Amino acid sequence: MERSFVVKGDFCYSLGKEELITRENAYLVCINGSVEGIYETIPDRYRGLPLEDHSHKLIIPGLVDMHVHAPQFPFRGLGMDKELMDWLWSYAFPEEGKYMDPDYARDAYREFVRELRKSATTRACIFGSRHVEATEILMDLLEESGLITFVGKVNMDRNAPDYLKETSAQASVDDTRYWLEKVRNRYRRVKPILTPRFVPSCTERLLEGLKEIQADYRIPVQSHLSESPGEISFVKELCPWASFYGEIYQRYGLFGGPGCPTIMAHCVFSNEEEIALLKNNGVWVAHCPDSNMNISSGIAPIRKYLDGGLHLGLGTDIAGGSTLSLFRTMAQTIQLSKMYWRHIDPQYKALNMKEVFYMATLGGGEFWGNTGSFQKDFAFDAIVIQDDRIAGSRDRNLEERLERVIYLADDRNICAKYVAGEKLF
Amino acid sequence: MERSFVVKGDFCYSLGKEELITRENAYLVCINGSVEGIYETIPDRYRGLPLEDHSHKLIIPGLVDMHVHAPQFPFRGLGMDKELMDWLWSYAFPEEGKYMDPDYARDAYREFVRELRKSATTRACIFGSRHVEATEILMDLLEESGLITFVGKVNMDRNAPDYLKETSAQASVDDTRYWLEKVRNRYRRVKPILTPRFVPSCTERLLEGLKEIQADYRIPVQSHLSESPGEISFVKELCPWASFYGEIYQRYGLFGGPGCPTIMAHCVFSNEEEIALLKNNGVWVAHCPDSNMNISSGIAPIRKYLDGGLHLGLGTDIAGGSTLSLFRTMAQTIQLSKMYWRHIDPQYKALNMKEVFYMATLGGGEFWGNTGSFQKDFAFDAIVIQDDRIAGSRDRNLEERLERVIYLADDRNICAKYVAGEKLF
Repeated sequence: MERSFVVKGDFCYSLGKEELITRENAYLVCINGSVEGIYETIPDRYRGLPLEDHSHKLIIPGLVDMHVHAPQFPFRGLGMDKELMDWLWSYAFPEEGKYMDPDYARDAYREFVRELRKSATTRACIFGSRHVEATEILMDLLEESGLITFVGKVNMDRNAPDYLKETSAQASVDDTRYWLEKVRNRYRRVKPILTPRFVPSCTERLLEGLKEIQADYRIPVQSHLSESPGEISFVKELCPWASFYGEIYQRYGLFGGPGCPTIMAHCVFSNEEEIALLKNNGVWVAHCPDSNMNISSGIAPIRKYLDGGLHLGLGTDIAGGSTLSLFRTMAQTIQLSKMYWRHIDPQYKALNMKEVFYMATLGGGEFWGNTGSFQKDFAFDAIVIQDDRIAGSRDRNLEERLERVIYLADDRNICAKYVAGEKLF
Repeated sequence: MERSFVVKGDFCYSLGKEELITRENAYLVCINGSVEGIYETIPDRYRGLPLEDHSHKLIIPGLVDMHVHAPQFPFRGLGMDKELMDWLWSYAFPEEGKYMDPDYARDAYREFVRELRKSATTRACIFGSRHVEATEILMDLLEESGLITFVGKVNMDRNAPDYLKETSAQASVDDTRYWLEKVRNRYRRVKPILTPRFVPSCTERLLEGLKEIQADYRIPVQSHLSESPGEISFVKELCPWASFYGEIYQRYGLFGGPGCPTIMAHCVFSNEEEIALLKNNGVWVAHCPDSNMNISSGIAPIRKYLDGGLHLGLGTDIAGGSTLSLFRTMAQTIQLSKMYWRHIDPQYKALNMKEVFYMATLGGGEFWGNTGSFQKDFAFDAIVIQDDRIAGSRDRNLEERLERVIYLADDRNICAKYVAGEKLF
């Protein structure tokens, strides 16, 4: 039996948004890459399996990054004093333009993938650039890395510099079909995802073309939604017919529903109609607190979404966000929810540790099905954390140790990583 | 000449809150621990001095932590889902109670000092616990570390568990005088600072006693002010005569002015009268964004304070804050100022990188006089940052490299540290 073994250690995982399970000094049995069960002692029938002994270390499901721009990795932490449009034109667009050159793309993406592999993230939904070749290079590198990802060649045929935007809606559609054919069945771990940048970057003709591609290929979709007031006004100008932003994606079949799993990043300022549609269509909201602060967007009403039953995950949103660390993203999610409660609306109480841990694991993981937990038959994605290196963690219970990891751990604390039962390190 | 040498590298420092100086590939001459000047080539008269070659590395003034609780270090990142009072009673007070035992204190403080020494911080204003012996141990360890600090034995004679609070105002005053006598002239780098915990912890009798001590010793003062709405209401109940919180410290001579340099942590909800008094008395506001989020306090109006000409520095506020990293604190200061602009009052525009860098260096450093910059005759406190380890920093200018350090660096990037011309590592 490949990818079958027993792992010993201290386990934490979510059953749902309110239920955290902790199992100290236990044995998890992984069979063919999936969790078979967690036991106090190894059942006789599994005694022949190899043992991975991580005694006294914390083992949690691999974290899921629902929104990250790979080509923006080289300039994270830069230009943060600029307004969104100025930042896009002076940093994001010029950098993305460089991915026209496959050699540049290979070097830059190698760095991104290396850092992502070292991080606590096991799965991610990734924006590439609009270039087919660079996007393939990214997919090749990710396949090699052992991580499981969705990767999108970006569509953008307006409101960008000539060196970056696609020459027409048709060219964008053609390139996308060409790319989808090239990568079809090429990877075991990497899957394509349709990636219209956002409404300001995509003409309705382009969205119409993407609708047909989605109908033909039945692949998932990712984009941005209601990130900031300025963007929302601009969208209103561009599509006056729409009563709210999300309705535009909806019209073009790019907004969830059967056969179209969809992730929308941000949703900071979604109105009630939009929230209802997000829920009704089962769209995932990717909450990106670091970016929402850096880009001066605002604080998203995550408590409302969580209690309202929306699909929710976390995103680092490199380079609006500056770090790949989802530990940091979890802490920031709690922190911003406290500021929302304090300064915006006290009816929405702060999120707690269990809730953000759920979002970073099972909440996002469900985009892949049984992922993001150690429940039976879930893919065995896990990170092993040597948390005794965090001063003061002696004699803490598992829940306390998990909380400290969220606030204090970084990649130095990660001593092993598994994705669908494959050990990356 | 002791502590005299030349340092080569890429320098960034503030002249004031708006002016950032960058000097690439330059030579800083340090004479007897102070900056003599920065030159393109070494002047002939200094050619005999030893050269510390940090070519291509970023060299910035050591960072200044204006507010940190040493005995809370062991439980940082814990209990963050609790309300302030619940957190104090279930984590802070029980932990601080342990410092009654000198052996416990020595072990725990050793860890704190070790981590502080490794960090980007060169100077700090530190709360101890209320115990004299533990506070001396902390001061001994800090003296040994090479860092320059103010340390306070905490005063607290009410609203705390019996095992922690002092038995009477007189006992607290006596202990403080005893402590001040014991540490008088004992250290070169560590100085005592009067530390009434905050008004809810100190009877007016105690404050009266501290007033006399301050008058006798002319030592500086640190405390907490207007951190959260609940605390402010409680203070109003305790001292109904005061028209605002800061007036209480003022009545007892513990609120700045000549001969009484004072730091007040937080000031999230200071009213106009309080702000005017802070300014008039030259009180330092220690802004602690991580803690202000974790404890659900709120967002302080730092733009208003900065433009209003108040003394401003940054604090990590362990364990309300969870990290000793002032890099993180700088980024959070910018981030929260953006949320203030967006959600609270758009008349106060976000802080920028130069402004928070000023706050973390010169803004706080001025508490010690000529500290926190590389201007002539300033103490040579510096950290040397190997920022080429941060992927994507090639070919960036110094200002961009500094911004990336603020958002992305951690203690791994610090390869050398000097305090008043002494090399710590």
